[in-house]
Amino acid sequence: MKEVAIIGGTGYGAIELIRLLGSHEYMHINKIISHSRYGERLAMFYPHLTEFYDDPMEELDIDRLKEEVDIIFFATPAGVAKDIVPKFCDSSVQCIDLSGDLRLQSRKVYETWYEKEAAPQATLDNAIYGLPEMYKEKIRNAKVISNPGCFPTSALLGLIPAIEHQIISPHSIIIDGKTGVSGAGGKATTMTHYSETNENVKPYKIGAHQHIPEIEQYLSAIATEEIKTTFTTHLIPMTRGLICTMYATLEKRVTTKEVIHLYQSYYEAHPFVRVREEGSFPTTKEVCGSNFCDIGIHVNERTNQIIIASVIDNLVKGASGQAIQNANLMNGWDEDHGLQNIPIYP
Amino acid sequence: MKEVAIIGGTGYGAIELIRLLGSHEYMHINKIISHSRYGERLAMFYPHLTEFYDDPMEELDIDRLKEEVDIIFFATPAGVAKDIVPKFCDSSVQCIDLSGDLRLQSRKVYETWYEKEAAPQATLDNAIYGLPEMYKEKIRNAKVISNPGCFPTSALLGLIPAIEHQIISPHSIIIDGKTGVSGAGGKATTMTHYSETNENVKPYKIGAHQHIPEIEQYLSAIATEEIKTTFTTHLIPMTRGLICTMYATLEKRVTTKEVIHLYQSYYEAHPFVRVREEGSFPTTKEVCGSNFCDIGIHVNERTNQIIIASVIDNLVKGASGQAIQNANLMNGWDEDHGLQNIPIYP
Amino acid sequence: MKEVAIIGGTGYGAIELIRLLGSHEYMHINKIISHSRYGERLAMFYPHLTEFYDDPMEELDIDRLKEEVDIIFFATPAGVAKDIVPKFCDSSVQCIDLSGDLRLQSRKVYETWYEKEAAPQATLDNAIYGLPEMYKEKIRNAKVISNPGCFPTSALLGLIPAIEHQIISPHSIIIDGKTGVSGAGGKATTMTHYSETNENVKPYKIGAHQHIPEIEQYLSAIATEEIKTTFTTHLIPMTRGLICTMYATLEKRVTTKEVIHLYQSYYEAHPFVRVREEGSFPTTKEVCGSNFCDIGIHVNERTNQIIIASVIDNLVKGASGQAIQNANLMNGWDEDHGLQNIPIYP
Amino acid sequence: MKEVAIIGGTGYGAIELIRLLGSHEYMHINKIISHSRYGERLAMFYPHLTEFYDDPMEELDIDRLKEEVDIIFFATPAGVAKDIVPKFCDSSVQCIDLSGDLRLQSRKVYETWYEKEAAPQATLDNAIYGLPEMYKEKIRNAKVISNPGCFPTSALLGLIPAIEHQIISPHSIIIDGKTGVSGAGGKATTMTHYSETNENVKPYKIGAHQHIPEIEQYLSAIATEEIKTTFTTHLIPMTRGLICTMYATLEKRVTTKEVIHLYQSYYEAHPFVRVREEGSFPTTKEVCGSNFCDIGIHVNERTNQIIIASVIDNLVKGASGQAIQNANLMNGWDEDHGLQNIPIYP
Repeated sequence: MKEVAIIGGTGYGAIELIRLLGSHEYMHINKIISHSRYGERLAMFYPHLTEFYDDPMEELDIDRLKEEVDIIFFATPAGVAKDIVPKFCDSSVQCIDLSGDLRLQSRKVYETWYEKEAAPQATLDNAIYGLPEMYKEKIRNAKVISNPGCFPTSALLGLIPAIEHQIISPHSIIIDGKTGVSGAGGKATTMTHYSETNENVKPYKIGAHQHIPEIEQYLSAIATEEIKTTFTTHLIPMTRGLICTMYATLEKRVTTKEVIHLYQSYYEAHPFVRVREEGSFPTTKEVCGSNFCDIGIHVNERTNQIIIASVIDNLVKGASGQAIQNANLMNGWDEDHGLQNIPIYP
Repeated sequence: MKEVAIIGGTGYGAIELIRLLGSHEYMHINKIISHSRYGERLAMFYPHLTEFYDDPMEELDIDRLKEEVDIIFFATPAGVAKDIVPKFCDSSVQCIDLSGDLRLQSRKVYETWYEKEAAPQATLDNAIYGLPEMYKEKIRNAKVISNPGCFPTSALLGLIPAIEHQIISPHSIIIDGKTGVSGAGGKATTMTHYSETNENVKPYKIGAHQHIPEIEQYLSAIATEEIKTTFTTHLIPMTRGLICTMYATLEKRVTTKEVIHLYQSYYEAHPFVRVREEGSFPTTKEVCGSNFCDIGIHVNERTNQIIIASVIDNLVKGASGQAIQNANLMNGWDEDHGLQNIPIYP
Repeated sequence: MKEVAIIGGTGYGAIELIRLLGSHEYMHINKIISHSRYGERLAMFYPHLTEFYDDPMEELDIDRLKEEVDIIFFATPAGVAKDIVPKFCDSSVQCIDLSGDLRLQSRKVYETWYEKEAAPQATLDNAIYGLPEMYKEKIRNAKVISNPGCFPTSALLGLIPAIEHQIISPHSIIIDGKTGVSGAGGKATTMTHYSETNENVKPYKIGAHQHIPEIEQYLSAIATEEIKTTFTTHLIPMTRGLICTMYATLEKRVTTKEVIHLYQSYYEAHPFVRVREEGSFPTTKEVCGSNFCDIGIHVNERTNQIIIASVIDNLVKGASGQAIQNANLMNGWDEDHGLQNIPIYP
Repeated sequence: MKEVAIIGGTGYGAIELIRLLGSHEYMHINKIISHSRYGERLAMFYPHLTEFYDDPMEELDIDRLKEEVDIIFFATPAGVAKDIVPKFCDSSVQCIDLSGDLRLQSRKVYETWYEKEAAPQATLDNAIYGLPEMYKEKIRNAKVISNPGCFPTSALLGLIPAIEHQIISPHSIIIDGKTGVSGAGGKATTMTHYSETNENVKPYKIGAHQHIPEIEQYLSAIATEEIKTTFTTHLIPMTRGLICTMYATLEKRVTTKEVIHLYQSYYEAHPFVRVREEGSFPTTKEVCGSNFCDIGIHVNERTNQIIIASVIDNLVKGASGQAIQNANLMNGWDEDHGLQNIPIYP
């Protein structure tokens, strides 16, 4: 049994880690750390956790963490993990950062898009991007994981096989993202106010979303050339769920059936990616509460375009579930341990 | 390992049984029976089940069921189980009926409220009402279970201790029920049409809901006198979740704290009922996806009334979760086996 | 044409006044006053108002208001109008306060429930409670109106005829209120956060809602004796709409049809109250965007109780629409002028 | 005063026409015609209309219509108007068809996408496409109007100026459409079932939506060459509102500010199109209940793409409001008569 700490105890990332770890047999939550609420019981803020985690939250104490835990999940806002992760580089503690702090290899690019100081270059160089469908072997040997963003997870899983197999022009990609409100976190803002968000679709951060450089960095890695992409995001009146609808110009003459077959083969060894048969497109609810990414594909012969839709639960495969998947790989456990639950439907 | 059949394969009750049985170690879904869709794969209608249950649904065949399964869950509309359950009375098959067919002891009362022919009296007499917090011992020895309705589960759990301890006048009870739309099932009707239901609260079946006689029958059993109650239902723009807000005249001078303490003691041995501390009321989301019933209590001294709110997930504790809880008890397994998951929040 | 000022320009009450005054022929919005945002254009916060109101918001200036406007609507939080309204007592300006500041005749009761200092007694004595269906004549001659709360409007309209005609025992009344989130205003809080509120029913302020003394004060006025009532409130995942489901013990042997007939007669001269035929209950969406209050009634002979449901749009009949209705009466215009629009459905 | 008939009385198009005509001074609803429900009162199905339209619905009678009405709105499903409109060609009755029957100039194309027999070619040739921002003069002189589809209205208004001014390559256009559920009409189906649609984004009719040829026909007319376009549609968990997010390759070096300025000039004489300032994107709620189309624009220099978002209320500018706008033009009334209401917000 490995001992686990979660830093950032009152956010949705942490709450979802607690939920999912509730059925994990090899990880035990040793402590939950909250900068703003230490000393208080989590169930005061989240009564649904009554009886599940009853110890008070704790203050951050690096030395105690080094002694008492094996794995740390950072469920913190941008700008926190970058200062803390480096302090564990001389220990055997595994760090999994759910924030964006370690995702961009260039400090300058981070600072442009996040408007914060970047992590030390050495920390960035050490961190492995925790998208298991792309970097499974590296993750197995990693000590520091940069857990992917929700939109990049959905977008990359939908695009990797087509780019690798040169079916599409990587320079022609357009990604239209739509997300539930929980992606914005638990903090009350006008953006997340019920009366403003309900019965509404809101385009936001058009041309400025911090997931753009993350997507481009890994699209470029796959294509082995520098890729720019057009990516937009829309806030949808739902709590959980995220879909990227993606468009690209075909480079080869292929049928929908052929592309689906290629995707199904590509993801055969990956337990969490499910590719739909021709004529069927996934909906966000069909992965709710689960670590699945479901993908639908249509080759539009009239316009020589491919349309790919990729859905995830933004809090599971888009955050906490993927973090556990990474922890499983890093520790030699079954990749899907604790993550085998059926989506909750309806 | 016990072999299980689910009858009524395409409804939400069945879908939720499949989800919950996914983490049950002692029950295995042997067959799913659908009158209207046999021969077809369930994942055609519910793609989120892809890879979880891949056999085609089957036609009803009593003899094969007697040979091949140990437990049958009836997730059927009213009027189906009453004809099928009696056919298993000469076998060892355990029957758990999620419909209302076996809940009312009087055939006449059933026929008045359900407007259908009732089950044979012998079948009604044999069926045990599967509310474990009320009839745990009887359930352990039962072969036929009548699984409670969603509203009665919530209402009875909120009222039993107060009636048993004669804190309230059982003749003064008013129950204001509010439910998510999934309680109406998966069939498309004007009542469940999104555009009609969204941004709307709809009172429905006022004075005519078939859960009224069920609630009264068991309130009467607890009070050991005949009780009538005023019960209304409201359709709420959400998918899952149900709350009964209940009002009754106090018969004793008690404080909120005293009543809460009494309830907490009363439910100490019952793993799925959680009673909130003074000043805290439960919300439906706080039990979502779980088998919990959370209860909040306020003694209103100004009016000599008690206010009790009781929340459940209508598809779990209000249907499929409770059915599994009953199966656990009938088979000597831990009462909460397969039902220990943390609510999904937010 | 009367000149109008709205104080509290960035709240939902103000926004709804602007929408409704858009089709009023005798009132012209002369200025919008905002304490926190004066100097800024309203359309920066509410882009849907672009081209409708383009002047910058102004700071509060009592003397200019006396000179330049005829009517002031106070769409301010509790505790603001009580200090400003008295300053207009030596002028001819009509004041209509949408907040709770002037609703309770007893300063002590106000201070207990609102936890703020009350308005001067003379101001309270001068203010007329602006429920036209109860006090139409007094409103016609009023200079200061205390516009009713949203729940009290719905509850009182549902109960007045039954109490006046001594059909029910006024001491037995139970009111179960359910409201959309816009009733909590535009401020971002955990209570109004989308992810917390969506797919959720939340009981709140149980036993402590500031509308309790308001409802009791006017129920007592109708019954001509002191009435206490049990009133609860629930937050519903919708933006607009409010329903009170009410229960009371019958004092007379009456049928549903008879009570409906009595209500229809009672409200014949009141253009905004519509009473449903037997068997039909109103839903909140059926009054959305309009100034209607729709009422459904069921006599429950089994329990000797009456069930009354009363729905309004909390921002219209529960706030801004009723304020305009009051202004119409105070100025001798048609009671329904500018308020004749058909509900927006679906 | 012109006398009006609405055919298709029980659908959402008709209900919205009734709401909007409620404040129109020159049109009077003379009769509502329903094939399935004639003889019944509309308020039985839509109680919110009580007191607004009390006559029973009528059966279709061509001769009486010719005698008694001046304008007919067809709020009928596809395949109805095509048979009825030709019968009025020898009369002076103005026909406005809200269905897709008259929108495609080629009978063959209609039959391919709608899978129904097309209208007679002469009828198609006579019908003017009722997008006033494109064909205002033709509409003024038209007798038969083909009212545009909801997605085409939003898409075309967002694209026309950029194509006309050759800012974008018309062959590079990608349109990602997102719509509320009311666009699917009032009929109860699995697609519109609350429990399936809530908390869900559903891509649908990918590559097969009947609005594709309509959009392409008018894009081609603007570009004066044959244009094909990639268009997808997503069902969003909200009742009203529609947004098209559109992407195209820039043909010229322009800034966001320049394009916005061009759009603002282009739409200066069109009362219902509002173009946002730089940095602001419209949301669907900001046009709710109104006839506005709000447009946001961003030039993405990194990728040489333009991003245009165009929002409408699908039942107003996307259907009934635009139909009234067309009727206004055909009869020489102010283009915005009866349509000047402020959006309902929140």
